[in-house]
Amino acid sequence: MARTAFVHRIAAAAPDDVSGLTDAIASGTIDPRGIVAILGKTEGNGNVNDFTRAFAVRALKDALRPHLSPEAVETVSYVMSGGTEGAMSPHFLVLGSGETADAGAGPALAVGGAHTPALPFDELGRLGQVRLVAEGVRAAMAHAGIDDPADVHFVQIKCPLLTAERITSVEVRGGSVATRDTLKSMGLSRGASSLGAAVALGEIALESFDEAAIGRDASLWSGRASASAGVELANHEIVVLGMSRDWSGPLAIDHAVMADGIDVEPVRAALRRLGFDADGQLSPSERPALMALLAKAEAGTSGRLRGLRHTMLDDSDISSTRHARAFVAGSLGALVGHAGIYVSGGAEHQGPDGGGPVALIADRRRLPSLVAAEGSPS
Amino acid sequence: MARTAFVHRIAAAAPDDVSGLTDAIASGTIDPRGIVAILGKTEGNGNVNDFTRAFAVRALKDALRPHLSPEAVETVSYVMSGGTEGAMSPHFLVLGSGETADAGAGPALAVGGAHTPALPFDELGRLGQVRLVAEGVRAAMAHAGIDDPADVHFVQIKCPLLTAERITSVEVRGGSVATRDTLKSMGLSRGASSLGAAVALGEIALESFDEAAIGRDASLWSGRASASAGVELANHEIVVLGMSRDWSGPLAIDHAVMADGIDVEPVRAALRRLGFDADGQLSPSERPALMALLAKAEAGTSGRLRGLRHTMLDDSDISSTRHARAFVAGSLGALVGHAGIYVSGGAEHQGPDGGGPVALIADRRRLPSLVAAEGSPS
Amino acid sequence: MARTAFVHRIAAAAPDDVSGLTDAIASGTIDPRGIVAILGKTEGNGNVNDFTRAFAVRALKDALRPHLSPEAVETVSYVMSGGTEGAMSPHFLVLGSGETADAGAGPALAVGGAHTPALPFDELGRLGQVRLVAEGVRAAMAHAGIDDPADVHFVQIKCPLLTAERITSVEVRGGSVATRDTLKSMGLSRGASSLGAAVALGEIALESFDEAAIGRDASLWSGRASASAGVELANHEIVVLGMSRDWSGPLAIDHAVMADGIDVEPVRAALRRLGFDADGQLSPSERPALMALLAKAEAGTSGRLRGLRHTMLDDSDISSTRHARAFVAGSLGALVGHAGIYVSGGAEHQGPDGGGPVALIADRRRLPSLVAAEGSPS
Amino acid sequence: MARTAFVHRIAAAAPDDVSGLTDAIASGTIDPRGIVAILGKTEGNGNVNDFTRAFAVRALKDALRPHLSPEAVETVSYVMSGGTEGAMSPHFLVLGSGETADAGAGPALAVGGAHTPALPFDELGRLGQVRLVAEGVRAAMAHAGIDDPADVHFVQIKCPLLTAERITSVEVRGGSVATRDTLKSMGLSRGASSLGAAVALGEIALESFDEAAIGRDASLWSGRASASAGVELANHEIVVLGMSRDWSGPLAIDHAVMADGIDVEPVRAALRRLGFDADGQLSPSERPALMALLAKAEAGTSGRLRGLRHTMLDDSDISSTRHARAFVAGSLGALVGHAGIYVSGGAEHQGPDGGGPVALIADRRRLPSLVAAEGSPS
Repeated sequence: MARTAFVHRIAAAAPDDVSGLTDAIASGTIDPRGIVAILGKTEGNGNVNDFTRAFAVRALKDALRPHLSPEAVETVSYVMSGGTEGAMSPHFLVLGSGETADAGAGPALAVGGAHTPALPFDELGRLGQVRLVAEGVRAAMAHAGIDDPADVHFVQIKCPLLTAERITSVEVRGGSVATRDTLKSMGLSRGASSLGAAVALGEIALESFDEAAIGRDASLWSGRASASAGVELANHEIVVLGMSRDWSGPLAIDHAVMADGIDVEPVRAALRRLGFDADGQLSPSERPALMALLAKAEAGTSGRLRGLRHTMLDDSDISSTRHARAFVAGSLGALVGHAGIYVSGGAEHQGPDGGGPVALIADRRRLPSLVAAEGSPS
Repeated sequence: MARTAFVHRIAAAAPDDVSGLTDAIASGTIDPRGIVAILGKTEGNGNVNDFTRAFAVRALKDALRPHLSPEAVETVSYVMSGGTEGAMSPHFLVLGSGETADAGAGPALAVGGAHTPALPFDELGRLGQVRLVAEGVRAAMAHAGIDDPADVHFVQIKCPLLTAERITSVEVRGGSVATRDTLKSMGLSRGASSLGAAVALGEIALESFDEAAIGRDASLWSGRASASAGVELANHEIVVLGMSRDWSGPLAIDHAVMADGIDVEPVRAALRRLGFDADGQLSPSERPALMALLAKAEAGTSGRLRGLRHTMLDDSDISSTRHARAFVAGSLGALVGHAGIYVSGGAEHQGPDGGGPVALIADRRRLPSLVAAEGSPS
Repeated sequence: MARTAFVHRIAAAAPDDVSGLTDAIASGTIDPRGIVAILGKTEGNGNVNDFTRAFAVRALKDALRPHLSPEAVETVSYVMSGGTEGAMSPHFLVLGSGETADAGAGPALAVGGAHTPALPFDELGRLGQVRLVAEGVRAAMAHAGIDDPADVHFVQIKCPLLTAERITSVEVRGGSVATRDTLKSMGLSRGASSLGAAVALGEIALESFDEAAIGRDASLWSGRASASAGVELANHEIVVLGMSRDWSGPLAIDHAVMADGIDVEPVRAALRRLGFDADGQLSPSERPALMALLAKAEAGTSGRLRGLRHTMLDDSDISSTRHARAFVAGSLGALVGHAGIYVSGGAEHQGPDGGGPVALIADRRRLPSLVAAEGSPS
Repeated sequence: MARTAFVHRIAAAAPDDVSGLTDAIASGTIDPRGIVAILGKTEGNGNVNDFTRAFAVRALKDALRPHLSPEAVETVSYVMSGGTEGAMSPHFLVLGSGETADAGAGPALAVGGAHTPALPFDELGRLGQVRLVAEGVRAAMAHAGIDDPADVHFVQIKCPLLTAERITSVEVRGGSVATRDTLKSMGLSRGASSLGAAVALGEIALESFDEAAIGRDASLWSGRASASAGVELANHEIVVLGMSRDWSGPLAIDHAVMADGIDVEPVRAALRRLGFDADGQLSPSERPALMALLAKAEAGTSGRLRGLRHTMLDDSDISSTRHARAFVAGSLGALVGHAGIYVSGGAEHQGPDGGGPVALIADRRRLPSLVAAEGSPS
């Protein structure tokens, strides 16, 4: 018997619509005991006052409660990313592991998760957060059974943010926060978390930068980290996705780094490495084999895309994270042929300035070439 | 001597930044006497209270005033489309005609413009507007010297909208307006205008639909009309772009119809008809040959894209037109390799529900194949 | 023994922060079995995609579940009004009844509630909704023990709205909806509900208007209805507040009608009728006696306030309901000396065009005059 | 002959609607040669990408050009404040001076203006800006003929902000900016400008604080400064309003400081000092005597108003400046009986944290008491 990963994409009709999960559990499609993480795109603004994330998490936990112990419910990582701008479709990705008799066919997708302790809010956006997340990523790798950081293709981190109340809680104790701007705190938290992942993956040495670089030095970045900030947690929930010979099954993961919001050719290359033709847009016959696309989007600090000025950073009506998600959802949606994708905003230290990492999970059995050769999967 | 069209894309650093136009006139690159239309993407919200359009028009007129008679300044069509969501880059497209000794090489891009009389606001969104615009399109075709509607590839219409003040002006006279919702009036005006273009182009017979179909019957659409509504005018400014044997020069136009916001393959096909390779994203060497891309975007009334729910129509923070522009700018930007494109929101009766027409103007001399064969253009 | 009403205002730190309620139940301050309704101001946008209302309701029900039967939990009316613009403070108002030995001191505040059956979505904004709500108001009056409509001072109605999904559900059956504009559906639902209340209170005869008047004829209005639309319900939850000789205790209610958003003098007059001095702003010593202020706000269809143009109706970035709530919260907050008030947007058929009803609940024992005479309340 | 000030409030139907000014000049009501400043409330978002301010200024200058030399057109201070949230009504206040034979009746309103040199953008939000503005305020006082800072009741400053382009222009030179957040730069610029005014007025000593206090130490504030930031200028335009025995005529000014957004009693007291009864809301007969109300509004850094949490600082859909303007416009509009008032957002170092200065200009001849005694003014 070997470990085998599963990934299910479940549409949501509202932030608290967990009927798809409930049905999948009822029908036996998903074994709740194997769930490691649930990633979700929820339809709030993705910024400070986005309560759709917490609302979804509450509904998800309530849906799992009849099947799991209270401790097990809390052990699952719930990583909600707010903001389904453009035609991006609200959905949940349920990731987990089971056992299979089909051992030996590896390497295959491996999934691991970890929760860090609560972050003292005066450490948010500072080196303390970097270190805390680096430890968490190592714990999640251990959970996934991945030793070599090179085998990790994606690290998803849910991190906290500052609110007016949290800032006050630090300041009344005589402490200071990295920023008093609540929206900005989301970026600092994502940035420090991503640097933590980069440290754990060996992309950047912890000693090579100092605190002032966090949120400022765009040359420091991870090609595999993805962080989302939310008001609904005070610690970090970390999910590691990679390839491991210890795991078996049809699922495979690869990643790409976009240099900017329309840099889709590296993503096409990754699709091809996974076995897709990917000439032009993924054809209807190829689409079912793509189980998940996870990407980061951001406006870029230059205020320009390939030399042309954009207005995302100067827009006081719509935050740049919302602009960027909508735009990159269009860019990647046009590549893969639908918008049921997970594009998350705010890519501080996640990919180069203005770009971001992209992870792709394929079900190799569903690829048209294989389907043609072997028949469709059951 | 033959007529020859010109198209210049000029970046704008602000709605009133017309320095690029001023410089091009000063250097002789643009002969202001030949300008037929200036299309612009300006950085407002593209909805009712978007004053960036009028601000740009005022600046453009002031820039032309030293070179043209007051009547000639007003004869130019100024079609500002508000909303540069995502990474779309604010810019002006200056279209016009001159003379060339290079006759006979046609067909080539032909450009014509017309202004309708002022629209009585109680006709907005009704059959009176349809008829008024149909006449205007015919006048613009005559101005372009295009007889056959099949040679028309794009009709750009700037149309008025209702404001609270305008509604009151109708109602105090005892009249009624098609809608008292100012944002909705933009859609009705775009819809009636586009049906007017469809009538003039022979796509739809005027007798085949009644007033209640305007803004409602999504099966009625033009594949070549593009309409933008703005508070700054009370009539319609119409620009017709097509191919004509009476015109000469390197420019050519073609069009495509997207069935939805990520339906890029028809656009790729049009690029190929114009001489581009268009394998994957346009390569850096191909990009300079694409002089302009004009597209319409909208959310689609089904609330779904290829079966997956989106949230554009239920978002009370960001209007669906803004979502759709950002998304389609990403979709088409990823195809052509930059976001200096003209994506306009609100595609009522412009392309099928959720999709829209796209026009592409190429400079055939700049295509890599030709450049390789003949050397780069002067 | 007589019935006696209670009103508790409980601050909320987030939509799902029900700790104040939980604490009040734990300490015995609130007997959960007596709760008739919980009204809440939650911090979403108050429009279509405001999930803070449903999130709050879920948390409130979970908080009551340990204390009440499942049926009793559902019998409570949960009327969340989204939108705490300006400095309005998120809070819950818990209204209910108990018994007191202090009979005979009436009249005093009486509280009653009712739920209507689910509204077929094709009836939303139409006469069917008017009739359904009128019946519901009569049921709530009966529950409160109020026979004479003149004794009713406030009717709070939570009503449903249309979403893209709901519209489709009607249309696939061949039905039609009153509007396909989801934001507009909120206004129609509030309007039809308020007319239903007006009918039940005898303010307007059902036969005196037809369906086309709903949402259009601003001369039809209730001076005591307040309606909020929310995506989280498909029926109506109705709460009636009035004065009754059958009830006893220190609480009293009165109401006023504002002719526009700054028409505060009628509210001051109502405060004086309740025993406040209300010279200028309520003094710090008077404020504790005001238990609740409930008001409606709207932009007014004229686009003007006392002859001066405002921009609320032409703003495509911020909906007019949000503008109006912020503005009226300032207007009424400056009168009563704090912003822990319940200002709800969208006052269609609720008060005259641009104005709205206001209800005020006072604890007569806490008025400075009485406190001076009798000592402070226990 | 003595100097005499004039103040005209002119409604605007759009940012570029200067017809009221044009008419007043044509009819002789306003002598354009005497105009010192035009303050305007324009209907943009009041934040970074608010182009209504520049649009209005362009239209105002064009309106003055036929009457004034090019130098004189530029010498007028144009202080547009974006954001007419709630029912605030877009309008211009035209302030200036003429001569009167009626000398000796002083003191009366005195008006002076000054423009500073361009601010190097790396000085924005820093001590260099404080010093530059302090010098500018002294120059404007000299222009008004006011020697004693105690006679100054209001200093209106229009100051620049940072955009992505401006930040880059500093950074490519190797410089640094005070913030890379464009929205935040507006607050820093307003703050440094207001401290400059406080220094010039003797409210705060320049030596008593250091650069880090700018935008941070809320205990430092001017009770008479009002600053608005705009993208349309790179220097400061300063207007000083005060009382002077050298000036004559019916106009008088006074000021108040609000401790928070509903602290209207100090404003009522100032109204009474100016001769109004101001019992409750200004009565219709009193309103014409109030020529202008200028106020600052802000959310306050505590996240609370009189102890109750508000959500303005945590709202990522609507900036806190917009919330605060809407709320305070309601608060002050309910006091003075209309919303044709000038409430400007962002009160950093302008009044205490969460509050702001308010200036009131009265025409003493129009007060009901005087009108009753002497007949109405011509």
